[in-house]
Amino acid sequence: MKKILLAFFTATIIISCNENKTTTNTISTNTVNKTDSIAIKQFFSTALTDGKAYEWLRDLTQNIGGRLSGSPEAQMAVEWGEKLMKEEGFDKVWLQPVMVPHWVRGEKEVANYSINGTKINVPICALGGSIATPKNGVMAEVIEVKSLDEVEKLGEKVRGKIIFYNRPFDNTLINTFAAYGGCVDQRYGGTEVAGKYGAVGTIVRSMTNNLDDYPHTGSMGYGKAKPEDYIPTAAISTNASELLSKHLKENPNLKFYFKQSCETLPDAPSFNVIGEIAGSEFPNKYITVGGHLDSWDLAEGAHDDGTGVVQSMEVLSLLKRNGIKPKHTIRAVLFMNEENGLRGGKKYAEEAKLKNEIHVAALESDSGGHTPRGFSYNGTKENQELFMGWKSLLEPYGLTDWHTGYAGADINPLKNETVTLSGYKPDSQRYFDYHHAATDTFDKVNLRELELGSAAMASLVYLMDKYLDVEPVKK
Amino acid sequence: MKKILLAFFTATIIISCNENKTTTNTISTNTVNKTDSIAIKQFFSTALTDGKAYEWLRDLTQNIGGRLSGSPEAQMAVEWGEKLMKEEGFDKVWLQPVMVPHWVRGEKEVANYSINGTKINVPICALGGSIATPKNGVMAEVIEVKSLDEVEKLGEKVRGKIIFYNRPFDNTLINTFAAYGGCVDQRYGGTEVAGKYGAVGTIVRSMTNNLDDYPHTGSMGYGKAKPEDYIPTAAISTNASELLSKHLKENPNLKFYFKQSCETLPDAPSFNVIGEIAGSEFPNKYITVGGHLDSWDLAEGAHDDGTGVVQSMEVLSLLKRNGIKPKHTIRAVLFMNEENGLRGGKKYAEEAKLKNEIHVAALESDSGGHTPRGFSYNGTKENQELFMGWKSLLEPYGLTDWHTGYAGADINPLKNETVTLSGYKPDSQRYFDYHHAATDTFDKVNLRELELGSAAMASLVYLMDKYLDVEPVKK
Repeated sequence: MKKILLAFFTATIIISCNENKTTTNTISTNTVNKTDSIAIKQFFSTALTDGKAYEWLRDLTQNIGGRLSGSPEAQMAVEWGEKLMKEEGFDKVWLQPVMVPHWVRGEKEVANYSINGTKINVPICALGGSIATPKNGVMAEVIEVKSLDEVEKLGEKVRGKIIFYNRPFDNTLINTFAAYGGCVDQRYGGTEVAGKYGAVGTIVRSMTNNLDDYPHTGSMGYGKAKPEDYIPTAAISTNASELLSKHLKENPNLKFYFKQSCETLPDAPSFNVIGEIAGSEFPNKYITVGGHLDSWDLAEGAHDDGTGVVQSMEVLSLLKRNGIKPKHTIRAVLFMNEENGLRGGKKYAEEAKLKNEIHVAALESDSGGHTPRGFSYNGTKENQELFMGWKSLLEPYGLTDWHTGYAGADINPLKNETVTLSGYKPDSQRYFDYHHAATDTFDKVNLRELELGSAAMASLVYLMDKYLDVEPVKK
Repeated sequence: MKKILLAFFTATIIISCNENKTTTNTISTNTVNKTDSIAIKQFFSTALTDGKAYEWLRDLTQNIGGRLSGSPEAQMAVEWGEKLMKEEGFDKVWLQPVMVPHWVRGEKEVANYSINGTKINVPICALGGSIATPKNGVMAEVIEVKSLDEVEKLGEKVRGKIIFYNRPFDNTLINTFAAYGGCVDQRYGGTEVAGKYGAVGTIVRSMTNNLDDYPHTGSMGYGKAKPEDYIPTAAISTNASELLSKHLKENPNLKFYFKQSCETLPDAPSFNVIGEIAGSEFPNKYITVGGHLDSWDLAEGAHDDGTGVVQSMEVLSLLKRNGIKPKHTIRAVLFMNEENGLRGGKKYAEEAKLKNEIHVAALESDSGGHTPRGFSYNGTKENQELFMGWKSLLEPYGLTDWHTGYAGADINPLKNETVTLSGYKPDSQRYFDYHHAATDTFDKVNLRELELGSAAMASLVYLMDKYLDVEPVKK
């Protein structure tokens, strides 16, 4: 029955594409029509009954796993993506070379302290980009703070100490990305400030809503610090953070010990993986859909961002399988190095500029693979009304949250005066339970939620291709 | 900081309640106002930072577990709910006696068949209400069908056979409850039809979107069948269904064997568990919020319906902790026996009628504990506009799906010409992965998703209490 249904729908789509030939050059907020509803329904039906993304994700996460830039696993993932898109029969599939930072974790980190004669072992992991501790680790008294400002105010008082950033997520924020945004300065920038005043290390409360026993890694930066002010930094679990905070009240002089042997090697060669379906009318104008192929080393990189990777490839697959002939060239880009450098995203935009590849639009999926809620819009005022008009077509599929705002790190370098950027926004409630921690594994992804996302993204790309123009603004 | 925030909000709420005294008797679609926004924000903030439902659920699911009507676990759950609501300090907590069906599964079921000399073991479970097979089981050729109609048409040809209902969920339906609704006649009513024509048993494809290895149980009925036409019925996993279907094509004469020793014992005494906060203006008028306390025996009854139970109790807790003094009496009702008899829901409505307890409204949570999407409305035309007007207050929390429709099995017996019934509608994508199967366990529930639901439900009850009237329609 599945095959009969598919054949029926494919026929419908081809007919409706022809029907629409006359309207494809008209831009209007009111051009969304029944043909679009039918096409969109078909993307969802194909994805939900015969989608491929879930099995692709199983393969990527369980057979390759964590794939940090520069690692052998990242290279395996590159080859995997290239092979898969070739097998899908996209018109062109190739690798775009890019040099990436190459940070390695080294031996498993160790942390502990003693309180009232009891030794407490602390779940800890180095932050990406951090230097190692001295070979025998670092041990010092701890100053707990809630902000970088607090460290600035303490100034020289932090010398010789370990700074413990312990500002928790604001769990009253409904969108968990907002809570993350309100805390992540501690992880990314806390070390630069503490190092400047002579602290010997920093430890950071993991970036998650949850109280759990997993350290959540992520990138950090030394910013403008002088290399002699570089100090090691690591994340500890939220439960350990709560406990340490309690113990520091009991004994403010307790000494915390941690040891890590991570290091930054010379930049390594890697690739963005790109597949495309050639445009029938404007082959030299592009719509890019992408996620990032690299992921942290502690887990399988399922929700971050294996789901975005497989959804992006499936967008092209859904267009192709449903007989859609896009006007513009549609590209799936598996960006390398979003996590600790964004080199892939920058490289892709640079090359597009060099080659005068005009981007009409780009869509990014890097917020996990949970149930769809909507899309963000980042583009011209002129196109905004048009874009928001598409909401009515996708509301029946649960995509009710259409808002202006940031679209995504990897496509942001494409930003210019004409391009439409959009971010796919799934439900965010569970995302930071797994984010950058050992728990970000395939079993946390639900087949239907993932496939609904693929179909929603295919629908948006279909609409962008059909209704967005096209000519760069002349100034 | 948490405590300071709470104190601040509590103060705010008390002030705003007083401010609103003058407007409480006005019914209008436009009375939703800033005070309501503040109250609602506070329900969410309390639930997300200091909610209790998650730990209550852990206790119910992990320390009691599955709690089918009439079982010792069901009695433990009754005592658990009563104790908990007393500890919460509700104004009145009591047990409402109700006689319930008492079906027991007996020994673990067995099913298998042989094909090409290989024995295939089939994951199987008896359906609730089914009779046992003969002591040594039943073995017969299988007729695969997709509908009850098909069996009616086969008529006498089914005599001596096992009927295999194998119509799968329509996975293109976005709301998975619609897919369930489109299939569940096979489970509930398939046996009555097959037994009438002399089949010796029925097996049913499990009611789930997924291909998995778990049999999903659920209730069945013999309807108007004569007792001599009663035949045993069971569910088999979806993977096993696919395989059996394939094997039947290879060998239409293969013989399927299954054995089950379930039986229906005499009705047993049990209880609805009821807690209430007395109304300040209309203590004899009621708003009920509830879920069902009983659950199938194969799992922990987490999403079905442990989440509804703890959310319902937390609604009262959230009102109380935020200083809300409701006008009407607000009741949390933990209904017994939703799964295989609905005796608790019927009893509650009967007693309400007998005691002339006028119900202004009732809200049910029995669709799982996933991220909130909206509410259904089932009431008068007059109140519909008012109700739908509340959407704007809850949209910021992700509740965008407000529609008219069925509210829930346990509160449906309260339906009359004046009452407003509503069903809490969380995201449905994952629900049937776990429904009535061994996988419906505590770890499938996410703290934030659960607590967002409690807060959404508290918000709706607050609005219903404040704006819905009140007088029964005089005819």
